[in-house]
Amino acid sequence: MKKTFTLLCAAMLSATFVHAQQDSLMIRKIYDEALVNGKSYESLRYLCKNIGQRISGSANAQKAVEWSKKLMESYGFDKVYLQEVMVPHWVRGAKETAFIIDGKNRIPVPIAALGMTVATPKEGITANVIEVQSLKELETLGEAAIKGKIVFFNRPFDPRFIETGRAYGTAGDQRFMGPAAAAKYGAVGVIVRSLTESLDDYPHTGATLVDKDGKNIPAAAISTKAANKLSAMLKMRKFPAAKFYFKQSCQLLPDVLSYNVVGELTGTAHPNKFITVGGHLDSWDLAEGAHDDGTGVMQSAEVLRVLKAVGYHPKNSIRAVFFMNEENGDKGGIKYAELAAQNKEEHIAAIETDEGGFTPRGFSFSDVSKDFIAKVNSNWKALLEPYEVDQLTIGGAGADIEPMKKTVPGVVLIGFRPDSQRYFDVHHTPNDVFENVNKRELELGDAGMAALIYLIDQHGF
Amino acid sequence: MKKTFTLLCAAMLSATFVHAQQDSLMIRKIYDEALVNGKSYESLRYLCKNIGQRISGSANAQKAVEWSKKLMESYGFDKVYLQEVMVPHWVRGAKETAFIIDGKNRIPVPIAALGMTVATPKEGITANVIEVQSLKELETLGEAAIKGKIVFFNRPFDPRFIETGRAYGTAGDQRFMGPAAAAKYGAVGVIVRSLTESLDDYPHTGATLVDKDGKNIPAAAISTKAANKLSAMLKMRKFPAAKFYFKQSCQLLPDVLSYNVVGELTGTAHPNKFITVGGHLDSWDLAEGAHDDGTGVMQSAEVLRVLKAVGYHPKNSIRAVFFMNEENGDKGGIKYAELAAQNKEEHIAAIETDEGGFTPRGFSFSDVSKDFIAKVNSNWKALLEPYEVDQLTIGGAGADIEPMKKTVPGVVLIGFRPDSQRYFDVHHTPNDVFENVNKRELELGDAGMAALIYLIDQHGF
Repeated sequence: MKKTFTLLCAAMLSATFVHAQQDSLMIRKIYDEALVNGKSYESLRYLCKNIGQRISGSANAQKAVEWSKKLMESYGFDKVYLQEVMVPHWVRGAKETAFIIDGKNRIPVPIAALGMTVATPKEGITANVIEVQSLKELETLGEAAIKGKIVFFNRPFDPRFIETGRAYGTAGDQRFMGPAAAAKYGAVGVIVRSLTESLDDYPHTGATLVDKDGKNIPAAAISTKAANKLSAMLKMRKFPAAKFYFKQSCQLLPDVLSYNVVGELTGTAHPNKFITVGGHLDSWDLAEGAHDDGTGVMQSAEVLRVLKAVGYHPKNSIRAVFFMNEENGDKGGIKYAELAAQNKEEHIAAIETDEGGFTPRGFSFSDVSKDFIAKVNSNWKALLEPYEVDQLTIGGAGADIEPMKKTVPGVVLIGFRPDSQRYFDVHHTPNDVFENVNKRELELGDAGMAALIYLIDQHGF
Repeated sequence: MKKTFTLLCAAMLSATFVHAQQDSLMIRKIYDEALVNGKSYESLRYLCKNIGQRISGSANAQKAVEWSKKLMESYGFDKVYLQEVMVPHWVRGAKETAFIIDGKNRIPVPIAALGMTVATPKEGITANVIEVQSLKELETLGEAAIKGKIVFFNRPFDPRFIETGRAYGTAGDQRFMGPAAAAKYGAVGVIVRSLTESLDDYPHTGATLVDKDGKNIPAAAISTKAANKLSAMLKMRKFPAAKFYFKQSCQLLPDVLSYNVVGELTGTAHPNKFITVGGHLDSWDLAEGAHDDGTGVMQSAEVLRVLKAVGYHPKNSIRAVFFMNEENGDKGGIKYAELAAQNKEEHIAAIETDEGGFTPRGFSFSDVSKDFIAKVNSNWKALLEPYEVDQLTIGGAGADIEPMKKTVPGVVLIGFRPDSQRYFDVHHTPNDVFENVNKRELELGDAGMAALIYLIDQHGF
C-alpha cells in the first residue's frame, strides 16, 4: 500500500512536472510570436492615424467598427461578428473658450467641455468663482455661498499613491459627480481641475454624470497649469474678485446604432464556454485614443492571433471583444453581458485591458477570496515571473466587463495591469497619440494576456 | 526554562515586529518626501537644458562638475568634494557623412563615429562592403574575403529577451570588439548596426575598443533603418556591388584633468563605513545624456537629500558619487575604487543607477550566493512590495562600481533595475533628452534606492 502510494505520488508529481514544463514551453512560444511577429503595433498605427478619434455615435466610430471587423477576419478567426448596441451621441461642437477676468484683463485658459455635459448660453457664462476642494466642502458651503457662481473643483492628484490609478480614483469624484452636485446648490457652471498629476496645458476631458431628474449645468475641465493660475488669482484678488468666463456648445443628439466587434477562436472541447479578452473601441474626441483604448483593442485581437499562430487549439472558446461606448455610457459592455445571459453562455473568465499599453506588471482579480488568489499565485506565479507579469492580486477589473458580474454567474473578472506611471499624462487629451506608445511595451502586454488565457484555458481555476 | 524561552521568543518576535513596523513607516516617509517634494526632476532639467552634453574632457563636463558640486552643497550634505581623475579627451569633429553608392546614385545615410575611434582620411573612404552577422563569421571569412573592404556588422537586437539589456549584451560585441577584429583581417573601415530594437533614423554611438598594439580603423554606427536599406541593396546589387562611402574626422586628444563629484552624509556610529550610490556624470556628445546618465546622478544626490529631509541620521556614511568617464574609459570608477582602498575605507555596499530613469522594478546583486539573495528577499521583499520595487535578484551591478570588487573586499555591489523597455530607443542618440524622462518614474527610483540604503544602513546584510 505504502509503495503504491509512493508510486502514485511520484506519478502525480511527474505529471505536474510535465504540465509545468509544457506550460513553460507554450508561454515561451507565445512570447516569441508576439515579440518577433507582433502585429498589434502596426494595427494600432492604422487605427490612430487612418481613423483617429472615434467617439461613440460618430462617423469615425462606425469606420473603426468596420475596419476592426475586417482586421479580425484577415486574422482568420473562427467567427467574427458584430453585436448591435444603441449608444449616446454627444458632440463637443465648436472649440470652447474661457478667460479669467481680472479687472480689465482677460487671460485665456485652456478648457474642454466634460463628456455628456450641456452647452452654455450662446454668449457664454460670466460669474464669480468659488474654489472648493471636495464635494464635502461644497455641501458645507451650501446654497448661500454657491448660488449664481461657477464652482471650481481644484483638489489635485495625490502624488503619494504608487499606482496612479488610485490617485485618479480618489480625485475623480470631482469630475464625475461635482457638476451635478453643484447644480443642486444653484451654481451656474463648473470648472474641474484636470485629472492628472502632470503640470501641463491640456485640459483632460472625461464623462460627467448627467442628472436625469435634476438641472444640468455646463461643466468643463481646465488644464492643471491654468487651474493653478486661477487658484492663485482667486487668493490674490479678493476685491474685486477675479471672475471666470466660458463658452461651450456641446450637444446630446439622439442615440445611434453602433456595435461591439467580436472575434472568436472556437473551443475544441467546450465551444459554449468562454474566456473573453477585451478593451473599448470608442475614444474621446480630442485625440487618437492610443492608450485609451486603442492599445486595449489591438491587444485583444493580438491575443487570439498569437494563440492561433503558435498552433494552439483552445479547449474553450476564446473571444476578443472590442466594446463600444466605454467612455460615456458603457452601453457596449452592458449589451455584451445581456447577450451572454440570453444565449446561456458559460463564461470562465473575462480580462479587460483599459489601463494603457505600458509594460505589464500583472493582473488583478475582482472580488475573489484570499484563498483563490493564493491558489492562482501558487499555480502560475512562477510561470509568469520570467516575463515580469507576475503581480497577481485582488483588485478591480474594468468597466466593460463589470456588467457580466450580474448576468453571468461564476465568471472571474480580471484586469490587465500595466505600469501606471505615464497613463494620466496623456489620458483624455490630445496627447494620447500613437507616438506615445512603445512597441515592446505593447507587445509584452499582448503576450502576457495570451499566456494567462492559455493557462486558464488549460487548467481553469 | 520553557517559560523563559517562550517569553524570550515573544520578546524577539515583538522586537522584529517593531523593527518591521519602524522600517515600514520610514520607507513610507521616504516615498512621501520623494513624490511630494522631489528635486531630481528639476535638477535634471537644469543639467540637460542648461549644460547639455558633457563628454569626458569637454568644457561642458567641467561645467557639470562645478554645478554638481554646488547642487550638493546647496542640499547641505556633511561633505561635498571632488576627486581628481585624468580622463580621455575624444572629440567627434565635423559631422560625419556617409553614402551608399549604387551605380551613379549616392544615397545619404545617417552614421555617427563610434567613441574612441579614428578619423578617415580627409577625402573619406570608399570601398566594397561585406556584411557579417558576428565576430565568428568574420573569423570564418578571414583575410581573403575582408581585406580592403568595409565590414558591416548587421546582427540585429534579439527581440525575444524580456529585458532589453540582455539583447544589448548579446549584440554589443559587434560594436565594442568588431572594429578591432576587422582591422586584423585588413578591413579599411567598419559600419555597425545601431544597438537598438527600434527602427529609426538615429545612429546610436558608443565606445569601441582601441587596440593599443594593433591597427585602428575608422568605425561608425549606422541607423537601423539605413542598415536595413544597406543590407537589402547588398543582396540586390551583386554586380556591380553597391559600395559605401564615409568620412569622419574624430580625434583623441591628450588626457584631461577631471573629477568625480562626491557628497556625503556622515555616519553617526561608523563614519568610516560607507554605502555608496552613484551614476555617471559624463554623457555622449550627441545629446543631453538624460537617461544616460543624468537621471542616475540626479537620483544619487536625491537619495541623500531625501534621507536628510526625513530626518534620518544614518549609522554609516552614505555617499552620492557622480562618476566621471563611464562612457569611454571608466576612469572615474577606477579612481574611486583606488582611493577607497588607499584610504582604508570599509564599504558595505555600492549601488549603481545607470539603466535609465524609468519605473523601478528592483535591484540585482552582483556575485552573491543563492543563500544571500534568499535572505535579502526574506528580510526585505515584503517591505518593498507595496512600492513595486521588490525584484531582488542575482545579476550585474554597473561599470562605475565594478572596480571596487578588486580593491574593497566585502563590498556588495548592487544594480538599480528600472523597467528596460524604452532605454535603447534613446540610448546614445540625440533623442536622449529631458523630455523623454517622466517625473514620477524618476522619483520612484529616487525613493526606491533611498529605501534600500536605509534598510542596509539599519540592518546590514
